[in-house]
Amino acid sequence: MSKTITITGAAGQIGYQLAFRIASGQLLGSKTKVNLNLLEITPALEALKGVAMELQDCSFSTLGKVITTDDPSIAFGDSNFAFLVGAKPRGPGMERSDLLIENAQIFSAQGKAINDNADQNIKVLVVGNPANTNALIAASNAPDVDSRSFSAMMRLDHNRAIAQLATKTGSHSSEIKKVVIWGNHSTTQYPDITHALIGSQKATDLVDQDWIRNEFIPRVQNRGAEIIKARGLSSAASAASAAIDHMRDWELGNSQDNWLSMAIPSDGSYGISEGIMFSYPILSSGGDYSIVQGLDLDEFSLKSIKASEKELLEEREAIKHLL
Amino acid sequence: MSKTITITGAAGQIGYQLAFRIASGQLLGSKTKVNLNLLEITPALEALKGVAMELQDCSFSTLGKVITTDDPSIAFGDSNFAFLVGAKPRGPGMERSDLLIENAQIFSAQGKAINDNADQNIKVLVVGNPANTNALIAASNAPDVDSRSFSAMMRLDHNRAIAQLATKTGSHSSEIKKVVIWGNHSTTQYPDITHALIGSQKATDLVDQDWIRNEFIPRVQNRGAEIIKARGLSSAASAASAAIDHMRDWELGNSQDNWLSMAIPSDGSYGISEGIMFSYPILSSGGDYSIVQGLDLDEFSLKSIKASEKELLEEREAIKHLL
Repeated sequence: MSKTITITGAAGQIGYQLAFRIASGQLLGSKTKVNLNLLEITPALEALKGVAMELQDCSFSTLGKVITTDDPSIAFGDSNFAFLVGAKPRGPGMERSDLLIENAQIFSAQGKAINDNADQNIKVLVVGNPANTNALIAASNAPDVDSRSFSAMMRLDHNRAIAQLATKTGSHSSEIKKVVIWGNHSTTQYPDITHALIGSQKATDLVDQDWIRNEFIPRVQNRGAEIIKARGLSSAASAASAAIDHMRDWELGNSQDNWLSMAIPSDGSYGISEGIMFSYPILSSGGDYSIVQGLDLDEFSLKSIKASEKELLEEREAIKHLL
Repeated sequence: MSKTITITGAAGQIGYQLAFRIASGQLLGSKTKVNLNLLEITPALEALKGVAMELQDCSFSTLGKVITTDDPSIAFGDSNFAFLVGAKPRGPGMERSDLLIENAQIFSAQGKAINDNADQNIKVLVVGNPANTNALIAASNAPDVDSRSFSAMMRLDHNRAIAQLATKTGSHSSEIKKVVIWGNHSTTQYPDITHALIGSQKATDLVDQDWIRNEFIPRVQNRGAEIIKARGLSSAASAASAAIDHMRDWELGNSQDNWLSMAIPSDGSYGISEGIMFSYPILSSGGDYSIVQGLDLDEFSLKSIKASEKELLEEREAIKHLL
C-alpha cells in the first residue's frame, strides 16, 4: 500500500523536519510506503532538490517516490494527505490585513489545485499562518472537496498546554487527558483545562485558578514568541511533530478517552458562527472526526471562546473577496 | 525502563534533527523512556534551551527528563548512549592538521568525561569529523571503558551507497543487502558492492565495472559536497537519520542476512593495522557486533582499502601526543 503526501514550503525549517519524520514511517506506520510531493517557491527549488537528495540518502524502507516542484497542480496530484506549511511571514511594517491578503492568494491557488488534482478523500492540514483563515480560503476554493477535509493546526498549542500542565504538576504528559484549545491559532486561543484529567484526578483540583488565568493561559498563548526569543528562530521541530500528531490521529484515530484539538469548519456547535475554521475538542475514529458535544462551559470559558470567534470573523471579513 | 542519551552539539543542525527523532521513540522504541542530556558550547546554551523547550512542547510519550549543559561531566552522567556530533568545522585557511588537533582536544576531554561519568556499558557514536580519528581519541582517553564501546559513523555513506545503487537499478533500497563501506569516513572510503545483492541477484551482474569505478564510488565519496552545493548547508537530516540507524542496529541487532558498516577499533581483520577506527562489514546481535570474516577481496578492493588505512594511520600520527 502506498500513499501520496504533499508538503508545501518543504525546504523551510518545518518542512525539513516534517519530510524526514514522515518518510521514516512516523505518519502512517512501517507498512505503508509514502510518496512525497514537495512544493516550494521557484527560488527555493535548488535547496529543495538538496532535501530530496538527503531523503534519498536515508534509504528509508517506507519511502517511495519523491517529487520536487514549484507547480501546485503537480504537487497535489493524487495527494492523500497535504501539509500546507509554506506561507508568507509577516515582514517589517506589514499590516495584519496585508498579511492576510498575501497569504489568501497563496491558499486560494492551492485550494484550486487541490480541487482539480488531489485524491477526493484528501486530508488537508494548514500549518502556515494565519492557519485558520488560510484553511478557510483553501476549503472555499475547493468546491468539489468536502470542506471537512480541511483543517488547521491547533495541536502545537494543545501539546504545549499539556507540557505546561505536566511541568506544573510534576506529572508526565502521557498522563494528561482532555485538554482543549478552543478557537483561533493565535494569541486569542483559549487553552482550557476545565475538563482535563491528570491520571484520575481533575486538573483543576491540582492547580489554582490564579495560575490558570495568569500564568498557564498567557504562556500557552505566547509560547511561540518565547521559543523565538530562546532559539532566535521560530518553532520548527515541535511544529512538525504536532503536524504529524494531528494528521496521524485524524487518519488512524485517537484513544476515545482523550480529546484532540483541531480547527475544523464550524457547524454551529457551542454557538459558534458557521463558516469559520474553529478549534474544538475532537474525537477521531475510522478516518473521520466528531466534535465532543455537551460540555459545560463556565462564564470565563464562554467569554474566552467568543473573543477568539470574534477575531476569526474579522479575519474572514478581511479576505471575504477571496472566498 | 528508561535510558539516558547524550547528544553533543545538540543545538546544531544535526542535533536538532536527532533530538526529536530520538525523543519520539525512533531509537529505542515506544516502550522505553529516554532522558536526553544535551551538551553545547557556552555561547549556544540559550539556543539549546530553546531546543529543550521545543522538546517539552512535543509532549512525547517516550521522553523523560531533558538536561541542557556546557559541562561534559554532567552531559555524560550515567549515559547509556552518546552521540558525539559537535565538532570544530574546518575554517578558511585552516590546515587539515590544525583541524585534527583542534578536534582532538574536544574529543580527548569528552573521552575523559565518558570514562569518569558514563554508564560502563555505554555505546558511543562519533559523528563529528574527522569522525574516525575523533573516536580513536575519545576511546584512548577512556581507559576504563571497553574500546569496543566506541565507534564512528559510516552509516551515512552506507545508506548513500544503497540509495545510488537502488536508483541505478530501479530497485527499492530495502531490496539491497551486503553493501559495505570500508575504511575512513572521508573521500578515501571504499564503497564496495562486490558482495551486494539486489533481491536474489548479484549487484555486479546488474551494473558494469565502469559505472562502479567512475560514477558510483566517486559519487558516494563526494556526496557530502553535492548536498552542500544544492542545500547551501551540509547534510543534517540524513546524517541524523544514519546516526539513529547505526545506534539502533548496534543496540537491537540487525537482520543476519544483511551487513552494516561501522567504524570500530581494528582488531587486525583483513590485514588492517590495529589501533585505528576502521569501517568493516558488521553483523550485530544481542547488543554486540562482530566483523564479517572471510570475504574474498579482489585487487581493486585491497588497494582501495589500503589507501584508506594509510590515511587513518597518517591522521593518527598527527594527533599521537593526545592518545
